[in-house]
Amino acid sequence: MSTVGFIGLGAMGGPMARNLLRAGHSLNFCSRRREVVEEFEALGGRHAATPAEAARVSEFIITIVTADAEVGEIALGKNGVIEAAAPGKLFVDMSTIGPQTVRTIAAALRAAGMGMLDAPVSGGPGGAAAATLAIMAGGEAADFERCRPIFQAVGKHLFHVGPLGAGQTIKLVNQLIGGGIMALVGEGFALAAAAGADLKAMTEVIKKSSGNSTLFEARAEKFVLADDYPPGFTVELMRKDLALALDLAQALQVPLPVSAAAFQLYTAAMHQGRRGDDFAAVAKVCESAAGVKIAAPRQS
Amino acid sequence: MSTVGFIGLGAMGGPMARNLLRAGHSLNFCSRRREVVEEFEALGGRHAATPAEAARVSEFIITIVTADAEVGEIALGKNGVIEAAAPGKLFVDMSTIGPQTVRTIAAALRAAGMGMLDAPVSGGPGGAAAATLAIMAGGEAADFERCRPIFQAVGKHLFHVGPLGAGQTIKLVNQLIGGGIMALVGEGFALAAAAGADLKAMTEVIKKSSGNSTLFEARAEKFVLADDYPPGFTVELMRKDLALALDLAQALQVPLPVSAAAFQLYTAAMHQGRRGDDFAAVAKVCESAAGVKIAAPRQS
Repeated sequence: MSTVGFIGLGAMGGPMARNLLRAGHSLNFCSRRREVVEEFEALGGRHAATPAEAARVSEFIITIVTADAEVGEIALGKNGVIEAAAPGKLFVDMSTIGPQTVRTIAAALRAAGMGMLDAPVSGGPGGAAAATLAIMAGGEAADFERCRPIFQAVGKHLFHVGPLGAGQTIKLVNQLIGGGIMALVGEGFALAAAAGADLKAMTEVIKKSSGNSTLFEARAEKFVLADDYPPGFTVELMRKDLALALDLAQALQVPLPVSAAAFQLYTAAMHQGRRGDDFAAVAKVCESAAGVKIAAPRQS
Repeated sequence: MSTVGFIGLGAMGGPMARNLLRAGHSLNFCSRRREVVEEFEALGGRHAATPAEAARVSEFIITIVTADAEVGEIALGKNGVIEAAAPGKLFVDMSTIGPQTVRTIAAALRAAGMGMLDAPVSGGPGGAAAATLAIMAGGEAADFERCRPIFQAVGKHLFHVGPLGAGQTIKLVNQLIGGGIMALVGEGFALAAAAGADLKAMTEVIKKSSGNSTLFEARAEKFVLADDYPPGFTVELMRKDLALALDLAQALQVPLPVSAAAFQLYTAAMHQGRRGDDFAAVAKVCESAAGVKIAAPRQS
């Protein structure tokens, strides 16, 4: 069993940290929220005041937070992981950030004698709770193997996909496809509502047709048709991930007209009070732009 | 067992007609292609010179062709089905056409004493061969029930989704989502190729992640990664279906920015020699626009 530092006990990190404890790993966690500290101390975790303190007493240091800047601050800032850098310690960032940020942080840590993996995940809070996440890791193969017992405690599908940054590149492509799919579903529901179609019947048909997807199965009926968007993976997070994908595409001179159009809808959703809703709420933008009600099935 | 007139023995209609014969139905088919006539006569079908002649000797008349105008000509044109219209006969169009065209044709047939269902399908030539198609039918419930034994011979998932035209509305939404998904997949592969990602590994990861879909599973590895686009459901057909969806949206004043962007890529694919390729070849437009090779995995 390993000693794991953990920073970012949120919607994803919280259940992941619980699964690490459940699997028998030692947890040195950072949190500024009293209820989180109390919960994880009660579960047997040890509270660390700073990332540096967590790193000092851990072999692996996992971060799963929101933004590039946050990961940079935790890794390289004052009281950051780098202050405790030592050979054999491994920084494992499981956030979704830009691959270039990964390489910048990894270079600084390497200069201080410490390794890094980028290991973003897919599966959302539900997958985190059930320990069924997909994990796509970039970095040295040996580091990936060292992390395998940790990854196995939080995920089900483990992939070493290439060198540093490769995990993030693949994650961003997954988000670009997934974010686009929910936008298409929103457009489809808006069109069908305008045409007076039976939206419940349509949902059943599409589940058995070529337009089906993992996201359609998880969200079309439960969220879009129910007009209920409880916070899970939020509009704000999806918009952030699409922005990272478009930033990467811009740097590499890759035109992405479909994904860019989807991004605009998530941006509009932010301004329509949907920032904290599940990202399927992009359908609400399509609904209001079409002047229809998606959640009110009629016969045409 | 029923007597079925059948017009449109193509990539979809051919295997469907074979399945009807296999199930024991009588087939009166129209075709101008000698090899088709020979094949279906050998299978026990009876060749009819015109749609009117097929309709005269059949209770059900199925069409599955490409365009609105073609269905209109077969139904209402010279030597068309309408010339044999009689109470109890049912015109079943399984093509993908606009819901307004369905209503126009149905009104003319009804005035001549004959009923109609719109019953488009999903599942492609593979689903047609395996008799696993999804069938989404609009029209009278009683007519749908009369057709059930016929539909069961060619499909697996049978849905009565509402009044005339409702089948087509739902089919167009399915196409809008599916066409958009393949465009997103093309963009994702182009971005990943530009970033130097391992595209084979990416394909495996996405299959276990939130970006997965029926189309990704069927086409990402087999077509996009293999750089092989054998004609199945073609670029030309997908572009036609998306045009129908956008026409409907225009009439109903529904903005579809994401789907409209996808449509542009299929239009571009037409001009890049991809008209007759499987519609996953939309990825080739993304590839050439990004100046990359999708089918050449490298490590980044």
